Amino acid sequence: MRYCYGVDLGGTAVKIGFFDGQGRLLARWEIPTRREDGGRSIPADIAGAVLADMARRGLEKGGCLGLGVGIPGQVWPDGTADAENLGWERFPIVSGLADRTGLRVAADNDANAAAMGEYRSGGGRGCRSVLFVTLGTGVGGGMIIDGRSLRGAHEAGGELGHIQVEPGETRLCACGNRGCLEQYASASGCVRLAREALEATEEPSVLRSMGELDARAVWDAARAGDGPALRAADRYCMYLARGLAAAANTVDPEVIVIGGGVSGAGQLLADMTAEHYRRLAFTPCKATPIVIARLGNDAGIYGCAAMALGQFS
Amino acid sequence: MRYCYGVDLGGTAVKIGFFDGQGRLLARWEIPTRREDGGRSIPADIAGAVLADMARRGLEKGGCLGLGVGIPGQVWPDGTADAENLGWERFPIVSGLADRTGLRVAADNDANAAAMGEYRSGGGRGCRSVLFVTLGTGVGGGMIIDGRSLRGAHEAGGELGHIQVEPGETRLCACGNRGCLEQYASASGCVRLAREALEATEEPSVLRSMGELDARAVWDAARAGDGPALRAADRYCMYLARGLAAAANTVDPEVIVIGGGVSGAGQLLADMTAEHYRRLAFTPCKATPIVIARLGNDAGIYGCAAMALGQFS
Repeated sequence: MRYCYGVDLGGTAVKIGFFDGQGRLLARWEIPTRREDGGRSIPADIAGAVLADMARRGLEKGGCLGLGVGIPGQVWPDGTADAENLGWERFPIVSGLADRTGLRVAADNDANAAAMGEYRSGGGRGCRSVLFVTLGTGVGGGMIIDGRSLRGAHEAGGELGHIQVEPGETRLCACGNRGCLEQYASASGCVRLAREALEATEEPSVLRSMGELDARAVWDAARAGDGPALRAADRYCMYLARGLAAAANTVDPEVIVIGGGVSGAGQLLADMTAEHYRRLAFTPCKATPIVIARLGNDAGIYGCAAMALGQFS
Repeated sequence: MRYCYGVDLGGTAVKIGFFDGQGRLLARWEIPTRREDGGRSIPADIAGAVLADMARRGLEKGGCLGLGVGIPGQVWPDGTADAENLGWERFPIVSGLADRTGLRVAADNDANAAAMGEYRSGGGRGCRSVLFVTLGTGVGGGMIIDGRSLRGAHEAGGELGHIQVEPGETRLCACGNRGCLEQYASASGCVRLAREALEATEEPSVLRSMGELDARAVWDAARAGDGPALRAADRYCMYLARGLAAAANTVDPEVIVIGGGVSGAGQLLADMTAEHYRRLAFTPCKATPIVIARLGNDAGIYGCAAMALGQFS
C-alpha cells in the first residue's frame, strides 16, 4: 500500500491530509500559515509537518507516492507561484517542497484543487466533467475534464468570478472591470444585495435589527421566508446563474458543483440558482444538475491528493 | 506515405479534401448535398466520391489512414448524429461511412472541426489552445485544448452563440432564450444592428439607399467610415466581445480565432472586437490575441483531416 499527502495552503492555515492510494482520507490536521518574511517559511513549515508525520507512521519515502499542494494564486508551469495574499511572486513552491521532503510534488491553484476534490470524491463523483464554482470572500472556480484541470494559457481557466454578469454596473470590481460575478456572488456581494433589498422596501425583515449583516444571516432569513432576504437571495442566484450559464455554454459540463463558504446556504441556493439557470442555458445544457459541494473545507486536500495520485501513481 | 480525407458536410455542398500524413491539402472538390429522403443518400454519396478518388489515384485502403467528417449538428459518442438541416435524428453516420468505404471514420460537429482546422493549420497554428467562434447564419464555435476538441457532456462544448450577452433583450432567440450572442453577432443580427443605427439618426449613410442590406455591406460601409455603419459595427463587436470574454474567463485560451462568413470583414472586426474584449476580460486574459481565421471555407476539411490523423495515425 502506498500513500500520499494533500496540502491546501490558505491565507491563515495550511490544511494537510494523509490519504491512501485510493484517495481515501486517513487523517487531517492544520498548521498556521506564517506570512511574515513574504511567506518564505511556508515550504519549510509544510515539509516539517509532513516529514514528522511520515516519521511518526514509520513511512519511508518509497511508500509515499507524492504530495499535492493547492495555492491561493497562480501556479506556473515552471513550478513557481504568484500569491498576493502570501507575498509570493514567482515563488519556487514546487522545488521548495520537493527539495525539503524528497517527495514528488504536484501544484495547482486552490480552486482548481477543490474542483478536483469534488470531481473525484464529492458532488461530481462518477462524472466525466465538473464545473466548480467557489463562493466566498471572492468567487473562483475550476473545470475538470476527464480527470484533468483546465488550467488555461495564463493559469486563469475556470476563473468564473470575473465573467461580466451585469453590463449596466458602474461600480468597479477589485479586478478593475465592472459587473463581474464576484461583485454579486461573493459573501460581501450577497450582503450588498441584501442591503439594497432592505432599502427598496419598508417591509419588515429580521435583517433590519442586525448590526453587521453577513451572507449566512441573509440565507438563514431567506430560508425562514423573510421577504427582503428572499428577494436578495433571488437576485444573488440570478447573477450566479448568468455566470454559470455562460460558462456551461462554453464547456458543457456533466455537473455543476457550488462550493465555498456561501454554499453553506444549501439546497435553497442550488434550487434557486437552477431555476434561473434553466432559463439562461442553451437547450442541450438546460438539464445539467446543479449541486452543492459535498466535501466542504476538505475539497482542497482531497483534490491535492488526487493530483498527486493522478500524476505519480 | 499515408493519406487521409477530410469531409465537411454542409447543407448545400459536401467539401472533400485529400491530405497527406502531415495534414497538407493535396486536392479538394465538392459534391452536392442530397437532402431528399431525410438525407439518407449522403453516406453513399460521400463514400462513392472517396472511393472513386482512391481508385483514380491507385490508393489502396492500407494507404489511407482514415476519414474525418464534420456534421452540421450534434455527433454522439455512439457515432450517430442529429442534424435538423439534413433531416437526421440519431443517424448512423460513422458506421454508414465506415461500412461503405472500409476506412476508419472520425466525426465531430462542423464548428468543432473548423476549430481544429484553425488550430492545426490556421490562425491558431503553434498554440496549445484555441477558442474559435464562427459568425454566419448562426453563431457557433469550438474549443481545442492540446489537440483535443472540448466536446462537452451534451456535445454542446464551444456553443458560444447562446451565451447571454444582453440581459435586457425582450425578443426571442431561435433557441427560445433571450439576449443570446447569436441574436447580435449572426449575419442577420449584424443587419438588424445596422437598421437600428440608421433609425436612431438622420445622418446620411450609403446603407440608406440599399434595398436589401447584408452583413458585408454593413462592414464595407464601416470600413469606408460611414457613421451609422461604424456605430452598428461597434455594437456588433461589443456583443461579440462580451461572449468571447465570458468564454475566455472560463477556458483561458492561448488565442481567439474568428471565422465564418462575417469574418470576411477582416482586421477592422478583429481590432474593434479586441478593444471591447480588453475592457471586459479578466486581467490574465486581457492580452489574449484575437485573430481572423486563415483557412476560410477550408477550415472544416483541414480540421476533419486533423481529426482522422490524430485518432488513427
